[in-house]
Amino acid sequence: MPRQVTAFSNATVKLLRSLRDKKARRAERLFLAEGLRILTEARDSGRLPEIVAFSAEGARHPLAAEIIDATEAAGGDAIEATPDILAKMSGKDNPQMLLGAFRQPDTSLAQIERSKAPLWIVAQALRDPGNIGTILRTGDAVGAGGLILVDDCADPFSVEAVRASMGALFTQEIAAARWAEFVAWLRSGEGQLVGTSLKATEDYLDADYRRPCFVLIGNEQQGLPADYEAECDSLVKIPMAGRADSLNAAIAAAVMAFAIRASWR
Amino acid sequence: MPRQVTAFSNATVKLLRSLRDKKARRAERLFLAEGLRILTEARDSGRLPEIVAFSAEGARHPLAAEIIDATEAAGGDAIEATPDILAKMSGKDNPQMLLGAFRQPDTSLAQIERSKAPLWIVAQALRDPGNIGTILRTGDAVGAGGLILVDDCADPFSVEAVRASMGALFTQEIAAARWAEFVAWLRSGEGQLVGTSLKATEDYLDADYRRPCFVLIGNEQQGLPADYEAECDSLVKIPMAGRADSLNAAIAAAVMAFAIRASWR
Repeated sequence: MPRQVTAFSNATVKLLRSLRDKKARRAERLFLAEGLRILTEARDSGRLPEIVAFSAEGARHPLAAEIIDATEAAGGDAIEATPDILAKMSGKDNPQMLLGAFRQPDTSLAQIERSKAPLWIVAQALRDPGNIGTILRTGDAVGAGGLILVDDCADPFSVEAVRASMGALFTQEIAAARWAEFVAWLRSGEGQLVGTSLKATEDYLDADYRRPCFVLIGNEQQGLPADYEAECDSLVKIPMAGRADSLNAAIAAAVMAFAIRASWR
Repeated sequence: MPRQVTAFSNATVKLLRSLRDKKARRAERLFLAEGLRILTEARDSGRLPEIVAFSAEGARHPLAAEIIDATEAAGGDAIEATPDILAKMSGKDNPQMLLGAFRQPDTSLAQIERSKAPLWIVAQALRDPGNIGTILRTGDAVGAGGLILVDDCADPFSVEAVRASMGALFTQEIAAARWAEFVAWLRSGEGQLVGTSLKATEDYLDADYRRPCFVLIGNEQQGLPADYEAECDSLVKIPMAGRADSLNAAIAAAVMAFAIRASWR
């Protein structure tokens, strides 16, 4: 049976609230996902929260009730909370009726099976958690296997990234590594590394993309470092028709990923 | 000569601060753009701010100095402010050293010359100003003429939209209209209206796109209303390979726009 929680000082409430903070996420190895849609996506991908919190109203939805039951059946914790406690936990005035704390998956490169998908997205030093979530969502849509975060990126388990991913956080593999570690792993098996660069001469529509293809997207401000570009097997450019010299990082990832998929039709 | 302003109560400071608010932007017909990069983009596109505010440090940059001089030469107001006043105006702890208040352009459909560009992006009821700014930036990169906002969209002149546009707000045409008004205008001249829909049977890579092409992107949550889809000359789908049934709106706009451009090579 779910516990009813009415105090902000309750330990579970405090734990869930703390997960808005990166340090706490790291220490607890948990992250927060909000809303029926994302929690349903998680459940359908075989993932249940360790803790689920909901309002009385939220629990009335049959899908929410299923998730709450399944969480308890799996040994998880279910708490019914008042709307203001939910608002505190989600940091929003209009809180979702349902939120869950999920165990963070292993993000080592070792658990990535590159042959599982023809396409993988690799992002370097991405600072915006919204971009990371959007890239995960795009990756799911385009049939990528997952996202490999190279160097210091924003936290893919932040509330903003989880929200922007619209549940793709549960369907895409996620790994994090330093550049040298990534290159060593990449070169230990098959895979074409494709970077985008303003200095490239080959149009992204003319390149020959080979499976598994790893598309490398650079930092929002600086793009890719020169030695990272040099490591690429293929360096392509997306021609810019206007005055701007770059695309938003998540847009560049999408344009590349969809063009690569189109080239394989 | 620029005026030095040290008081938060200064009328110009108050005016600039107020532009973070939509009502004030509408009343004053002004909007705020921040940072040397965006202000340089504006200047290079023939647009100068009516008011430019800067820190002593910001004015040391030669490009900033040029913009400040040009603004004054054109009869605009230039104020040098302390970093905390700039922070108040920009709403950020790390404020830009330079910001400008620009006159809002006319956003009537009547000023759109459709023959000026082969591609136009039309967005319906888009709620996220970041998406609007990102679509403007993408439109600039892909060679679109501009963005037509249909029904109740977020304000393209909000600080978030201007920031995400990275200056494309000054290079792309912007119009706003109700749906009926837009359709009447569209049908008064040449143009193919292309919508994306999950219900469509034609793959977006197989469609025949004709210039000028108007790509219609629906609201983030609901997509396009059925009668808007019915109005489209061509309805295409972007196949979803994973569990998700949709893309982020700005991503969908980019995937469509770049695919249309690619089809014209």
